[in-house]
Amino acid sequence: VKISELSTRSGVPVATVKFYLREGLIATGEKSSQTQSSYDESHVARLRLIRAFLEVGGLSIASARQVLAVMDDDSLPFGVAAGVASTALPAATTSASEGTGRGDRDLSDLIKRRGWTVDPQNPGWGLAARVIDDYAALGRDDLISTLDIYADAAERVAGADLQSVADADGRAQMTETVVIGTVLGDSLLAGLRRMAHENFSRTLFPVPPEIAQHYDHSPLTRQEKP
Amino acid sequence: VKISELSTRSGVPVATVKFYLREGLIATGEKSSQTQSSYDESHVARLRLIRAFLEVGGLSIASARQVLAVMDDDSLPFGVAAGVASTALPAATTSASEGTGRGDRDLSDLIKRRGWTVDPQNPGWGLAARVIDDYAALGRDDLISTLDIYADAAERVAGADLQSVADADGRAQMTETVVIGTVLGDSLLAGLRRMAHENFSRTLFPVPPEIAQHYDHSPLTRQEKP
Repeated sequence: VKISELSTRSGVPVATVKFYLREGLIATGEKSSQTQSSYDESHVARLRLIRAFLEVGGLSIASARQVLAVMDDDSLPFGVAAGVASTALPAATTSASEGTGRGDRDLSDLIKRRGWTVDPQNPGWGLAARVIDDYAALGRDDLISTLDIYADAAERVAGADLQSVADADGRAQMTETVVIGTVLGDSLLAGLRRMAHENFSRTLFPVPPEIAQHYDHSPLTRQEKP
Repeated sequence: VKISELSTRSGVPVATVKFYLREGLIATGEKSSQTQSSYDESHVARLRLIRAFLEVGGLSIASARQVLAVMDDDSLPFGVAAGVASTALPAATTSASEGTGRGDRDLSDLIKRRGWTVDPQNPGWGLAARVIDDYAALGRDDLISTLDIYADAAERVAGADLQSVADADGRAQMTETVVIGTVLGDSLLAGLRRMAHENFSRTLFPVPPEIAQHYDHSPLTRQEKP
């Protein structure tokens, strides 16, 4: 197909496709004439993968190039591509606090206790450590006692995630699974957790119907029913 | 104590304390002279709670005021405060896609299957539904099959979260727990999940030491060891 159809099929503008070609992120097509090249299904799939990296994963062009290079190198085991893709994903932290060391110590103990092997450079380590530091800074050390229950849940979900990666069709789809599964999976888990909060709250902290009719679980602007 | 010491103790600048006083978020102190008021421990605790709402929870002043008003009203069951606090928390979505209805349908089925009672207005519902829509839009319906494993994990963690709320000391600390536990708990779970990913990846996709020495799980800029 021509570059215009490649653009339509992948949802990537022609100018952007040309940019990716110049950057070497996708292979050049077969020369079909002096001025035109022809592209195939592999180009469509590649563009969709790059879109997933950039738009879902939030990777920079430079990071995407490095992930693709490792993924494309069949002499490297897939674990290298998985590691490079995973570490390229930003781990947003909500904390502005300096680390106190408490989180790092608790996580070191945790991974020993559970027999995990995790590099302290893993982006998730810093994220989790800062939460523990924040709980302590807020005077809420009691909340740190839930750490093992969180780790159980994380382990359960991560096991399923890795199975999805292993079940994917080829290295490209496996790498895509690492990227979109990591990012979207966080949102899925966060969303379901808030749904489960409401469910348990209704049992643990019931609101009698005559009061509930004035309040609901909708956003605050609509909090008081007419 | 004087307003200056209240500021030091709570970490809130004097001008901000005066603003909260004018806004009615904290009670006025005892008049100790014509120009000075005296504050006590309850004011320090209240300011820390407001800081947690604004800085950790990301609530607006208007939302914080509504949560505090419901929390302060002892004639209302705590479930109302929990619901209002929870729905005031923003649920960041990474999706730019329009909902297709797939996510809403899958979540309706899920909550029926699990016997949950959840209002579709729950901020987590939209977040989770958009992820399912995104998986489908990316042609990765296969990833939706992990939904129940995610829901299991969410349920387990949410149960512990609600127990932390119930164990907290009084309505103010219970409400604080809802706010900081919801926000920081998301980060903790996300961080631990990425740590567990690495742990499982090392088993499922092993990298021989002679290759591993050139790559590690550190950020990409340091990806290739010298």
